[in-house]
Amino acid sequence: MVISKNMESLVAGSSVIRKLFEEGLQMAQVVGKENVYDFSLGNPASPVPDEVKAAINDVLANNSEAYVHGYMKNAGFDETREAVANHLNKSFAMDYDKDDIIMTVGAAGAMNCIFRAMLNTDDEVIAFAPFFGEYKNYAANFGGKLVVVPASLPDFDLNLDELENKITEKTKCIIVNNPNNPSGRIYPKETIEKLNEIIVKAEEKVGHPIYVLCDEPYRELAYDNTPVPYIPSIIKNSIYIYSYSKTLSLPGERIGYLALSKEADGYSELIGALVVANRCLGYVNAPSLFQLVIGRCQDVGVDLDFYDRNRKLLYNKLTELGFEVVKPEGAFYLLVKSPFEDENEFVELGKKQHIIMVSTTTFGCPGYVRIAYCVDYKMIERSISAFERLAIECNIR
Amino acid sequence: MVISKNMESLVAGSSVIRKLFEEGLQMAQVVGKENVYDFSLGNPASPVPDEVKAAINDVLANNSEAYVHGYMKNAGFDETREAVANHLNKSFAMDYDKDDIIMTVGAAGAMNCIFRAMLNTDDEVIAFAPFFGEYKNYAANFGGKLVVVPASLPDFDLNLDELENKITEKTKCIIVNNPNNPSGRIYPKETIEKLNEIIVKAEEKVGHPIYVLCDEPYRELAYDNTPVPYIPSIIKNSIYIYSYSKTLSLPGERIGYLALSKEADGYSELIGALVVANRCLGYVNAPSLFQLVIGRCQDVGVDLDFYDRNRKLLYNKLTELGFEVVKPEGAFYLLVKSPFEDENEFVELGKKQHIIMVSTTTFGCPGYVRIAYCVDYKMIERSISAFERLAIECNIR
Repeated sequence: MVISKNMESLVAGSSVIRKLFEEGLQMAQVVGKENVYDFSLGNPASPVPDEVKAAINDVLANNSEAYVHGYMKNAGFDETREAVANHLNKSFAMDYDKDDIIMTVGAAGAMNCIFRAMLNTDDEVIAFAPFFGEYKNYAANFGGKLVVVPASLPDFDLNLDELENKITEKTKCIIVNNPNNPSGRIYPKETIEKLNEIIVKAEEKVGHPIYVLCDEPYRELAYDNTPVPYIPSIIKNSIYIYSYSKTLSLPGERIGYLALSKEADGYSELIGALVVANRCLGYVNAPSLFQLVIGRCQDVGVDLDFYDRNRKLLYNKLTELGFEVVKPEGAFYLLVKSPFEDENEFVELGKKQHIIMVSTTTFGCPGYVRIAYCVDYKMIERSISAFERLAIECNIR
Repeated sequence: MVISKNMESLVAGSSVIRKLFEEGLQMAQVVGKENVYDFSLGNPASPVPDEVKAAINDVLANNSEAYVHGYMKNAGFDETREAVANHLNKSFAMDYDKDDIIMTVGAAGAMNCIFRAMLNTDDEVIAFAPFFGEYKNYAANFGGKLVVVPASLPDFDLNLDELENKITEKTKCIIVNNPNNPSGRIYPKETIEKLNEIIVKAEEKVGHPIYVLCDEPYRELAYDNTPVPYIPSIIKNSIYIYSYSKTLSLPGERIGYLALSKEADGYSELIGALVVANRCLGYVNAPSLFQLVIGRCQDVGVDLDFYDRNRKLLYNKLTELGFEVVKPEGAFYLLVKSPFEDENEFVELGKKQHIIMVSTTTFGCPGYVRIAYCVDYKMIERSISAFERLAIECNIR
């Protein structure tokens, strides 16, 4: 074995989602791209907003290339961090300044920085199922352990009663992903307030801060005007994590940030360590051109209708066909309950119809499949007859 | 302490170079930018080549935005990896194909991926002094330990006799940075051949492969036609690491790659783990636009004259002034021997003249200062009178 011990299992269980995505590409080569209904990946199909394209041109045309493509502080360009702080202050009545913002290589980069800065070997990170499976690997990179609070079914709310039992002296942080990938659930203000009470009590008991990592790349993807509470305004020890991947359709560019309020316990120590982590994990800084671009696009919204149309079509059609569907309130994922005990059987039957769906086992919540509907509307239309055939194969029709 | 134990020392000894860079920015606000001679950072001042600018426009104009800014395989775009493989094959008579190339977030990202994939707790990574101080942190991120082979003085060659004593059963890899930062030394083919002999013998003894990490962001910066040997063509178990930061003046964009030859021991296992590491360290993929850009710029060279002019001016003037200067063969750094036993005294005296130089203590080789001459020629011209005053202050003139 030339690879490290804790890498072995990771490679063995390597991202099911990524594997399906690559399988979909292969399938497309055989049967044609238009005949594959790939719902595997959160790769947003909504066009990059015109404002972003204009900002790319503006940054390239009106700044010295040494500025645009050069090194800056490890935390990012001052102008970008100031724009982000202003945006958060305006949107959520917060009081950030630029020093509270660190530009990161997406939300995944932010989370790795946080774990690098915080975790000792065997420290614990709590996640609520269903959760993005990579959280486990992010913690494992630095010897940390992901502790899972089982899903609250069938409502997919935060399972707060179970949370209390999971907090130990080793607990360093708790991840809350709102709106949730993969359930599409939006946790309301009341739930977050209850979460706060539990954490404040627990912090007193364990004698150290427990940080809530607010993983919110889907914040703007909230349908039917459902409000998404801003957790750092409710829970003091919060680290807000954002990515432009989903809302501005820039996932490949790896641009996001984290924000830490000065009121959080251990602020100075933590923010210093986070900047160092950003450097020494080899990110060095978030990609420079896109830092400047998103600095100019703070008020650019997501094309919510693009995804809402998809959501409605899929939810209505799949329900009509007899599938049991969890209606998403936010994000761009939809869960379908597997008609079989082992949802992998359902995934395989789907593949026969060239429908690519992801089992929720890696999300810590078996029994469902995830459909990422961040795709072209026409692909969903084309897929309906395939879902019809799938419903027949599953004997639910 | 809210931060992890092994982060504490890291924050305490946080990058001296970065601190100086930020000190320089502050100094500029007080005395004016043109009166600060900041030689701290390897931030290349040579203009971004026109071919790169044309490639940015070409990629943006002639590809779908979903392709340019979207997710691709974690290892990178096939077209880019193919272009890189072809370039290496043509340049060094190698036999790479695209699957042997992983696009990374700069060379620092590549190195973190390698350490994540390879290192168990307490595994050892060997570096030859003087070395880029961040290597130590990259290894420490994953519980690894940097073992330093002391510098060979005054020639700054690889200290191969000492290497033999440092290899143990815990040794997983050896970093060779050629041309070297900070010494500017280029290790010739004969040295690499001798290194190969030592490694082959050691591998037999320890019973596992020892990989040479060829950290070569400065490869094209070789003056006076000094040849830079391509290590993977000499040492079988090599991982080649490259970054476009220095040669194409794109350090902020975070774009580089690693290449692993199929002939290397454990190839399949290792390349698989490296792709997973790229994903789970939160890089996910190297920034997408710049992957496509550099794929189109494989034959774009560095403006060598830009740096050679700087090298000559500084070397000649500082020598004239009585400083003891190590003449660089490559890269864009120059070492000056400190006139005082503690080179920090020299650094501080420099600051008084608004000259920002970096102590080599963090490079594992005290007694010198590093001058990064990847700056504007005019700044060097302006700095000469400040160096004159510094020479007087140091009593060497």
